[in-house]
Amino acid sequence: MEELPGSLGTSASFSLRLGQTIFASASLLIMSLGINFYSYTSFCYLVTIMGLVIPWSFTLALVDGYSVIAGCPLHRAGILLVIAAGDWVLSILSLAAACSAASVVEILSQLGEPFCPSKECNRFQLSVAMTFLSWFLTTASFLFNLWRLPSL
Amino acid sequence: MEELPGSLGTSASFSLRLGQTIFASASLLIMSLGINFYSYTSFCYLVTIMGLVIPWSFTLALVDGYSVIAGCPLHRAGILLVIAAGDWVLSILSLAAACSAASVVEILSQLGEPFCPSKECNRFQLSVAMTFLSWFLTTASFLFNLWRLPSL
Repeated sequence: MEELPGSLGTSASFSLRLGQTIFASASLLIMSLGINFYSYTSFCYLVTIMGLVIPWSFTLALVDGYSVIAGCPLHRAGILLVIAAGDWVLSILSLAAACSAASVVEILSQLGEPFCPSKECNRFQLSVAMTFLSWFLTTASFLFNLWRLPSL
Repeated sequence: MEELPGSLGTSASFSLRLGQTIFASASLLIMSLGINFYSYTSFCYLVTIMGLVIPWSFTLALVDGYSVIAGCPLHRAGILLVIAAGDWVLSILSLAAACSAASVVEILSQLGEPFCPSKECNRFQLSVAMTFLSWFLTTASFLFNLWRLPSL
């Protein structure tokens, strides 16, 4: 059976998973460097979701890495379905987190200095950008796995 | 060929499209009843996206209605692909609009009276709830059409 690049067990999928883990970790770290994020629901939500994305993507990166090195890709439709469903749910949650945090940053920077010192605002913006990148890669993984599903 | 309920040209799809049009129109109307929404980027974005969802869903409701009454469903993979892609893009944009508007409403209601009078805040919340419902139905349409795509 031909392998679709990007679907479970390929080296492209390994790169995608690694990218998700890195961006999600960066987003989580940058956001939680200051304790200030705790006052805003959206930022807490973003941190929670990134905390879910990191173990999920890291585990699947390990699975992909093993599968590439050992040369034995998984060909079970059930497992692929569960992974595609997980990716879908996480991509929806990541998008929701990124959008809500982005609009809160926008409002805070409009309100100005007392609510959001310039240095802190830049940090929040960077964290949101990382979340968007993580969402993009998660959606790519979801689409590749979904596309391969009917052929199993 | 068997018809999947909810995919293009069925009465379930007609109901979904009608629901999307009604919820998106309600969201747009409730949000733009006062002129105040104009000061916030997220609310302007929500109004723009709902302005895209309404003609898209209404047109497809007409197509579904015609197809049900005339009894001649469309069986072209190309058309279904374009519709599924459109649904996907609109569902992502609707979710982004709903989440960003929801977090802005949350922040405004935290800031209290001068930023968001209680009556206005309730109106914004209702509009956001309608957007979430419209997103939910758009995603359902997308999934049904996507599921039917490989069988064409």
